[in-house]
Amino acid sequence: MEQLGSMMAAGATNSNQKSPPILAAIPGGYRDWKLISVAHEDASLNDIRAILGNDIAVKAYREGTFPFPEGSIIARISWMYEPSEENNKIFGRTQSFIAGPPTNGVQFMIKDSKKYAATGGWGYAQFNDSKPIALSSSCFVCHQLIKERDFVFTRYAP
Amino acid sequence: MEQLGSMMAAGATNSNQKSPPILAAIPGGYRDWKLISVAHEDASLNDIRAILGNDIAVKAYREGTFPFPEGSIIARISWMYEPSEENNKIFGRTQSFIAGPPTNGVQFMIKDSKKYAATGGWGYAQFNDSKPIALSSSCFVCHQLIKERDFVFTRYAP
Repeated sequence: MEQLGSMMAAGATNSNQKSPPILAAIPGGYRDWKLISVAHEDASLNDIRAILGNDIAVKAYREGTFPFPEGSIIARISWMYEPSEENNKIFGRTQSFIAGPPTNGVQFMIKDSKKYAATGGWGYAQFNDSKPIALSSSCFVCHQLIKERDFVFTRYAP
Repeated sequence: MEQLGSMMAAGATNSNQKSPPILAAIPGGYRDWKLISVAHEDASLNDIRAILGNDIAVKAYREGTFPFPEGSIIARISWMYEPSEENNKIFGRTQSFIAGPPTNGVQFMIKDSKKYAATGGWGYAQFNDSKPIALSSSCFVCHQLIKERDFVFTRYAP
């Protein structure tokens, strides 16, 4: 299982895949999407991240629609996990960990049950420096293990 | 300085203040606001948080408008910082820390240079269980120490 975490850590950049990227371009305006939740991934990832959703995905989360409707898109943006010397100096103790520079790779899950039937109805896309990389099958290695929640790790944070 | 962190930790719920709450009700729709950044506050706070902004504040961040324009509102929502047993089991290692139950208290900074001249041009509001509590002067104890950035701790995470 260590391997799974490592693949996630590397942003699944292994290029020994034949499939083309599932999205040619980053979904427009994703940085403006509503917040689903936040997380810190430790170990080799060492990031702090936000999970955003398009309107279809966020509405589904809030209303408990399950499985996620067609057209749902969930985005993961992340930054280096860094202590804030600036904040800690003011608070007088080591307390504050903040978002540093963006990590390489913005990731998306796109629900299209027919198109992505082979990976649970979701396509997985990653963009490194805004360039698409092939990804779906390597992401699905972990996501398939949470099938009972429609392959989605993140729960909505109210 | 330890005291400052403790006040922040307690959500500044000390009630020995004479001033009334600066906002009577939570700004409508704040949970839909755009994401500014994320952070983890350790020690007694032990939260993971998102900083959201209304359109005026986010536009200012993105365009580098400084100081923040009148009407800017910055929101802090936070949740208990918790390991995700569910995720860690799948990844095969202790890696994932996620948003647990919401912490008590949603906080806002509202820019109105005249109205809140005594606290650097920002009013500070907190709502516990949706009820407003008096707060401005206790928040300003820390925020005044970051005057060179218009009293705002959080930087925009691109």
